[in-house]
Amino acid sequence: MYPDTPPHLLLPLWPMDQVGIVAKLSECIASRGGNILGVDIFVPEKKNVFYSRSEFVFDPVKWPREQMDEDFLNLSKVFGASTSVVRVADIDPKFKIGIVSSKQDHCLVDLLYRWQEGRLPVDITCVISNHERGPNTHVLRFLQRNKIPYHYLHTTKENKREGEILELVLDTDFLVLARYMQIVSGHFLRTYGKDVINIHHGLLPSFKGGNPSKQAFNAGVKLIGATSHFVTEELDSGPIIEQMVERVSHRDNLLSFVQKSENLERQCLAKAIGSYCELRVLPYEENRTVVF
Amino acid sequence: MYPDTPPHLLLPLWPMDQVGIVAKLSECIASRGGNILGVDIFVPEKKNVFYSRSEFVFDPVKWPREQMDEDFLNLSKVFGASTSVVRVADIDPKFKIGIVSSKQDHCLVDLLYRWQEGRLPVDITCVISNHERGPNTHVLRFLQRNKIPYHYLHTTKENKREGEILELVLDTDFLVLARYMQIVSGHFLRTYGKDVINIHHGLLPSFKGGNPSKQAFNAGVKLIGATSHFVTEELDSGPIIEQMVERVSHRDNLLSFVQKSENLERQCLAKAIGSYCELRVLPYEENRTVVF
Amino acid sequence: MYPDTPPHLLLPLWPMDQVGIVAKLSECIASRGGNILGVDIFVPEKKNVFYSRSEFVFDPVKWPREQMDEDFLNLSKVFGASTSVVRVADIDPKFKIGIVSSKQDHCLVDLLYRWQEGRLPVDITCVISNHERGPNTHVLRFLQRNKIPYHYLHTTKENKREGEILELVLDTDFLVLARYMQIVSGHFLRTYGKDVINIHHGLLPSFKGGNPSKQAFNAGVKLIGATSHFVTEELDSGPIIEQMVERVSHRDNLLSFVQKSENLERQCLAKAIGSYCELRVLPYEENRTVVF
Amino acid sequence: MYPDTPPHLLLPLWPMDQVGIVAKLSECIASRGGNILGVDIFVPEKKNVFYSRSEFVFDPVKWPREQMDEDFLNLSKVFGASTSVVRVADIDPKFKIGIVSSKQDHCLVDLLYRWQEGRLPVDITCVISNHERGPNTHVLRFLQRNKIPYHYLHTTKENKREGEILELVLDTDFLVLARYMQIVSGHFLRTYGKDVINIHHGLLPSFKGGNPSKQAFNAGVKLIGATSHFVTEELDSGPIIEQMVERVSHRDNLLSFVQKSENLERQCLAKAIGSYCELRVLPYEENRTVVF
Repeated sequence: MYPDTPPHLLLPLWPMDQVGIVAKLSECIASRGGNILGVDIFVPEKKNVFYSRSEFVFDPVKWPREQMDEDFLNLSKVFGASTSVVRVADIDPKFKIGIVSSKQDHCLVDLLYRWQEGRLPVDITCVISNHERGPNTHVLRFLQRNKIPYHYLHTTKENKREGEILELVLDTDFLVLARYMQIVSGHFLRTYGKDVINIHHGLLPSFKGGNPSKQAFNAGVKLIGATSHFVTEELDSGPIIEQMVERVSHRDNLLSFVQKSENLERQCLAKAIGSYCELRVLPYEENRTVVF
Repeated sequence: MYPDTPPHLLLPLWPMDQVGIVAKLSECIASRGGNILGVDIFVPEKKNVFYSRSEFVFDPVKWPREQMDEDFLNLSKVFGASTSVVRVADIDPKFKIGIVSSKQDHCLVDLLYRWQEGRLPVDITCVISNHERGPNTHVLRFLQRNKIPYHYLHTTKENKREGEILELVLDTDFLVLARYMQIVSGHFLRTYGKDVINIHHGLLPSFKGGNPSKQAFNAGVKLIGATSHFVTEELDSGPIIEQMVERVSHRDNLLSFVQKSENLERQCLAKAIGSYCELRVLPYEENRTVVF
Repeated sequence: MYPDTPPHLLLPLWPMDQVGIVAKLSECIASRGGNILGVDIFVPEKKNVFYSRSEFVFDPVKWPREQMDEDFLNLSKVFGASTSVVRVADIDPKFKIGIVSSKQDHCLVDLLYRWQEGRLPVDITCVISNHERGPNTHVLRFLQRNKIPYHYLHTTKENKREGEILELVLDTDFLVLARYMQIVSGHFLRTYGKDVINIHHGLLPSFKGGNPSKQAFNAGVKLIGATSHFVTEELDSGPIIEQMVERVSHRDNLLSFVQKSENLERQCLAKAIGSYCELRVLPYEENRTVVF
Repeated sequence: MYPDTPPHLLLPLWPMDQVGIVAKLSECIASRGGNILGVDIFVPEKKNVFYSRSEFVFDPVKWPREQMDEDFLNLSKVFGASTSVVRVADIDPKFKIGIVSSKQDHCLVDLLYRWQEGRLPVDITCVISNHERGPNTHVLRFLQRNKIPYHYLHTTKENKREGEILELVLDTDFLVLARYMQIVSGHFLRTYGKDVINIHHGLLPSFKGGNPSKQAFNAGVKLIGATSHFVTEELDSGPIIEQMVERVSHRDNLLSFVQKSENLERQCLAKAIGSYCELRVLPYEENRTVVF
């Protein structure tokens, strides 16, 4: 009924700056018979850097995947690019993620449902929680049916079990904190060395820290929000990926603030993960993101 | 072409709490032959207060305006109401406002345009500014053509000319700070004794104080906002009346942040004033508003 | 952590018109010691009808549920009300619904997930489909685990199996068509005699009939939408309950139109059902709804 | 305070298709010392065309404006481009527009206000109306003060004065119909030969033709909208440039439908003109637009 294969994607990110880079990139793709569908370029004002994201179709027979990697590596060397990421949606393996959660299920469950319906383009390596769940809970039965390992790690103020978590997610491409109610340490972040995406149940930078719904309610705001961001050492201050808001009024109480907030969190986190997997998200400068 | 007379409005606000108040209110209106079109009631959880706003049609011959005032006054006495405000849109005079501004014109000009087009239901007593404008500026010619007094009051850190402002706005029903870049003192607020509405060019409670666009830009937010609120002694912390947001991205620079913000400010301030004039806005608890 | 019991709700709808009805209603509730939290009244211009919805708290010991029914019945008689519906969320049984679907799962699955998470306040009597699903599909395993009967009824142009459907949903309070790709007959609607809610994957009244996403795509719209509405004999023309839109651009193709549309359909249908269950929805005039 | 000069813009549109065009374009700009800030490329699926829009900074001394034109003309010849439009915001003259209106002022007045505030990047050649306005109306005094010619042309069913309008707008770059209540003929469009932008007070393709607010009201919609589109011979069916919606409810009557609609029309038309002037808008296929 509908075209069911999206075009092949190739998404190189080129954080660098040099006259002629688009020219060279286009030339390279054209020389292999590829066809550019879209290019997104962003050059911050007065900055000496250059970000781009391209999509194109190509013939994998004429341009084998390994050759493509080599071509782009060569190109990136020419321009002194610090990174070049290429993903071909139908050929490359999916990103592997670990989901870390606490007691509240709504984001975790939403991610699992989306994954089951094929709307979350990742492989879930494992789900880790510092809240114990009985074997008959929806979440555990879901994970069991779908053969996704579940690890319960009791955390205390003194022992956040970060070493064990690190071992469990060794093989992942990035981490998702789905309402994980622990602050992860700088040591954890540096050791993991890959991106960690968090969902904050408030409209950052307002309402950092605990219970942002209550903070928002007390502040009498007319818009409530949620924020998905990269985790950095400073609490709730990492680069923002996505934010969403919904209108509230005097008719809302704390409960409905929480419910509206949870609804936003689900959508906001899923959107951020989706953008990330399509290589649309790129941190830049100390605290910002480019989201193509 | 379209029905051009809106229904007569009567809008009593009853901040009090007593079983049976709606019953008595309805009875009173019905006994005078009035017909309720809508009632909005709000009773905060676990609070001993009661807010309502009613709209109804009535026959001014059968129920003279003075009689209506007397009726509602009697009713409010029965229930110990702290306030009862009644306005009949087509009979009562418009609210008189003073607009206080600084250098930036966009909110002031927008209010003047809306006023001229009949979309701002107020009479403008005067425009006060601490920024000097030449006689040939749009603003001054507009004010002159429309016979709205303009007062330039040079302010310094030491002398905010608050006494003079107070004299000029003595006869107003409420004040609008249309991007007035001075903090008004508690003494001013207490002496004026009526409501002062401000437009803040940020999404409060984030970005209080100066240059919120720059603050927002540096924070890398994905949503930029504006906030209209009542002025209290604490800077940018009064009860919020209206908030609006718009999406921003890495493509936006500080200038476009400012432009989007200004666009939101215009709409947000006008909306807040409109709601206020229709008696939809009521501060409640220390820092919140009911906006019916 | 949060107040987990919402206030008791009582939601009478009073389609009638008479001076003093709010007075009597308030009096009645007050006389039983109840406390009104909110009243929403709507009186269409120049129409002789009156709609209202109230929420209040009460003590079930002092005001037994049966007594309440009797009180409101008496009141409705006094005013000649055509209907009076009362629901007390924590006491009355949930609405029983039947879900009728075809091949496409996304709305059905979304409703099931919401139901499982306690975000859809209904009991699901059965799921009926004219599309055969294998026993190992997600849907069937979900239904089996949760002991929800599933009925596959093969339909043809000549035989829509409406008799059998009617028997299966005899005991339901309303029906939900979750992307059911059959036109239900006037006979079916009249025999069922209760409300049927449909989700239309287009922004009605544009794009009636088949493949609205393709229609919208071809029309080059910049906003794509979904519509939840009551089913009437005329195709896609029943009273609209809820509509949602999302922005599209030239970057969207038919596939992404469909995906955005499906996302809107899920939210739109769930919102409509939620509003319906809270007695917020009331058809009025030939083709409109009041949604309090 | 803020960077007050936006970067120089160069915006070529290249509706064509050929491997290597981005390469050549980038090369050309780089060879003149220019620096690309952003490129937006769009290649419709399975279509043999290619659209792009670029922004870059350059040194007008090193790359004179005439040379730039020549360079791009040469490039477009190489690729057989059907059009190549280049505009440099700070150097090229503004677009000249004619505004054609009828009785209703709101869109006309909004455009004039935005123009006066420097938020509409055009020169207004003239305002034409088929509705007579007195010399003391706001509109006429505004136009007089700002030395914008105003032409009243009485139209009848038999004589739409199209010949005279054509003469008056001979020197314009495009036309804006600001709620002009006449259907312009195919002959007019072909003779004028340039773009004509219309604002339709409904959410096309719903509610074509007259009184769309009433149509929408009668249809009981929950979202009301406005549409800006190019004018073609077929009534209200030209390619859509921008659409906006706002929520409505049973509380809205025809009057408030109209007011909300008018508010959307103002914003929607101004947004469309702004996009057009920045060369973001490009009709493609029979009935769609690319809006970069």
